[in-house]
Formats: sequence, structure tokens, C-alpha cells
Amino acid sequence: MKKIGVVLSGCGVYDGSEIHEAVFTLLAIDRQGCEAVCMAPQVELSVVNHLTTQETGEKRGVIEESARIARGKIRDIKEVTATELDAIIFPGGFGAAKNLCDFAMKGSAASVNTEVARLLKEMAAAKKPIGAVCIAPALIAAVLGRDYSPTVTIGTDDGTAAEINKTGAVHQSCPVTEFVVDRKNKLVTSPAYMLATRISEVADGIDNCVKEVISLI
Amino acid sequence: MKKIGVVLSGCGVYDGSEIHEAVFTLLAIDRQGCEAVCMAPQVELSVVNHLTTQETGEKRGVIEESARIARGKIRDIKEVTATELDAIIFPGGFGAAKNLCDFAMKGSAASVNTEVARLLKEMAAAKKPIGAVCIAPALIAAVLGRDYSPTVTIGTDDGTAAEINKTGAVHQSCPVTEFVVDRKNKLVTSPAYMLATRISEVADGIDNCVKEVISLI
Repeated sequence: MKKIGVVLSGCGVYDGSEIHEAVFTLLAIDRQGCEAVCMAPQVELSVVNHLTTQETGEKRGVIEESARIARGKIRDIKEVTATELDAIIFPGGFGAAKNLCDFAMKGSAASVNTEVARLLKEMAAAKKPIGAVCIAPALIAAVLGRDYSPTVTIGTDDGTAAEINKTGAVHQSCPVTEFVVDRKNKLVTSPAYMLATRISEVADGIDNCVKEVISLI
Repeated sequence: MKKIGVVLSGCGVYDGSEIHEAVFTLLAIDRQGCEAVCMAPQVELSVVNHLTTQETGEKRGVIEESARIARGKIRDIKEVTATELDAIIFPGGFGAAKNLCDFAMKGSAASVNTEVARLLKEMAAAKKPIGAVCIAPALIAAVLGRDYSPTVTIGTDDGTAAEINKTGAVHQSCPVTEFVVDRKNKLVTSPAYMLATRISEVADGIDNCVKEVISLI
């Protein structure tokens, strides 16, 4: 059974993984007869009250909160290497841009969590497929932009696209239920909630994106 | 557009709503062209670390945590009446049996959150469809068992089924992707993660259950 890494960043759109995107990623992997290997880095997140969208000052562990989405089956990303994975997928949510890297604060000058960057570089060097949705393609650009000049999409947001282009990556606009494939780099990206106005659009876009990632294995 | 209430109980299988079940409920409602009205009661939950399944001693607000699943669009259940809903659905997770009522601790002697019980009784009196999955049918039994003798399923767990039967409800066994319909009471229940071993089984079971609830409007 093919193993697909799923990198989570907490549990909730404003301070972690976007929950719908993460769940539809896990569903699409299962529907394709593959096994999801959930993982997250051992870092803390700054809690955002999802009613008010305001930070509360509280800290929570990214692995422990991500475990809510993974129903407890999750590993520290530092223990995972590319040799055991057939592909890797990054759901979105602000956590991808705040907890896995600091793109949300620093744009193209973002620094990336050491273990996240290490695994992404291993996957790219091994020419194994990489998927990313919503804002997560910005993380891919921050890690691989300079060396691989990957083509990615986060939908149509000009400001974010401009920051992505500064990394060496190339942003391409894309409708919500479609995806952009960079065949040279085996990289598939899709806008999800960067553009979606309905949960069913997110489900369709991610299903399409995950199928394409798996087809590239 | 038909409005379907979705009663959440936190965010995470061990101390709140089961996340996959809640997300698939929202997806199925959208796919049927209906609008989800998310709500939760103003109570606190006892946090469970989802890596270890142990309680941490921390408390969190059920509405604030449920807001993670609802992406901020959620109301206090005390403000919601049956007149504005066409149907109501309860996803599972331990939160349904610990935060909406105390069935997890007291079985058939459970007491139910006042506002949850009030809205459920209003829906039953108005003959509006009610759906519940996973452990949530136990909550329905605790509220409606004596007056309506509803037929429900939580799958095949004998101990839970026996407690449900003590309320005046009648438990019926059911496979994971199917559902039980009590036409007299317009009540649809399905096992979801009480039986599921794969996320795709949960998606299929809940999709079937939600479609049936909406067909009864």
C-alpha cells in the first residue's frame, strides 16, 4: 500500500491546519487505496479564538492539536524520512504559514521549520510527488523556490503570488476546483479555501489534487 | 434554501465532536443544496490530549472549540429555535456524550444540557427530521426515549445498546455505511466511527444518513 505523508500544523484554520482541507486530504488518500502517514513538527502555536479571530495569548502543542484531526495517529516529523513515503501532501490553514514556516509574517523572506524543510528537500531530491493546497504552496516555494523554480498556485491572490514569485517559484492562477501540475518537479497545488466559498468546492478541489499527486508516484 | 442545524460539542473525538464526522455532515448538507446552521452550548469541556487519550486538567469553551470546525460561523444553541430549522443533525465524538449530556458517565440515567434537550424536544414536537451518528443517538434516546420510543442505532455495541434500551428507545443493529430510519419519529441514525475502520466508510455512512434526513423534510 502506497504511503502518503500528510503534514499537519495544528487544528483550526486561524492557528493550525484548515480542518476541512485536512479531512478531505485524508479521505481522498483512503479512497485511492493508499495509507495516510500524519505528522507534525514539535513546536507551539499561538491560539486564536475562532469565534473572534483574535489571539488569546495561550500556547498549544502543534502535534497534540494536530492529533485531533488524525484521531491520535500522528508522528513527530523529525522521525520521518522520504525513504518511507511515496508522496507527501500539505493541507492549508494559517498554521502552514505560521507554524511550519513564518511566511504569514515575512513573505518571501520566510524561514522554515528545520525538519519540515529537511523532509521537503528529501522528497524533491528523490523525485517523489508533493501536493500542497490553499496557502501551503507558499511553504513549498520558500523551501524549493531557489533550487527548483517550481510552478505553484494559491489561486488568484496577487499579493501572495508576488511574494511567491520572489522566492524563485512561479505563481500561476487557478480556479478553485482545479489544480496546477509542475510535471518536472512532480508538484501539484490547488487553491482550496484561498478561493472556495463552499465546502463542496474544497472537497472537489482536494480530491482532484490528491488523485493527481498519487498518479505521479 | 433548507436550513439544517448541526449541533457540535467541541473539536476532537475524545473531548468534543468527532472531526471527520462533523466535516462530512457539513459537506453532505452543502452537496444537497442546503445550508448548515452550526451551533453548540455555552459549556466547558475537559481537555483530552489526543496523543495520549489522557485528560490534561485544562478546560476549554465548547462553542470556541466547535468554531474551529465551523470556521467561525457558529451560534449559541440557546438562541436557536425549531421554527428556523428544517432538520437537525448531531455528529458524534465523546463530546456528544460528555458535553451535550453525561451519557458517557451515567448511561441511561444521563441528564442532558437544558438547551440541547429543549431544541431536540421542539424539533420532535414539530415533526421535523432529526439525524444522529456514532454515539449521538444515545443523546437522542436520553431526551426522547420515554415519550417517543424512538428506534435508533449506534452500530452493534451491546453495552451501549442496553443503556439505550433502558431509556425507552429501541436499539437496532446496523452496518457502518447504512442507517436506521424511524419513519414515525422522522429519526435517522448511523454508526460512523462506532464501527468504521476507514475514513471512507464514515464519509459514505454520513452522506447516506444526511441525504435521508433531508429527504424526510
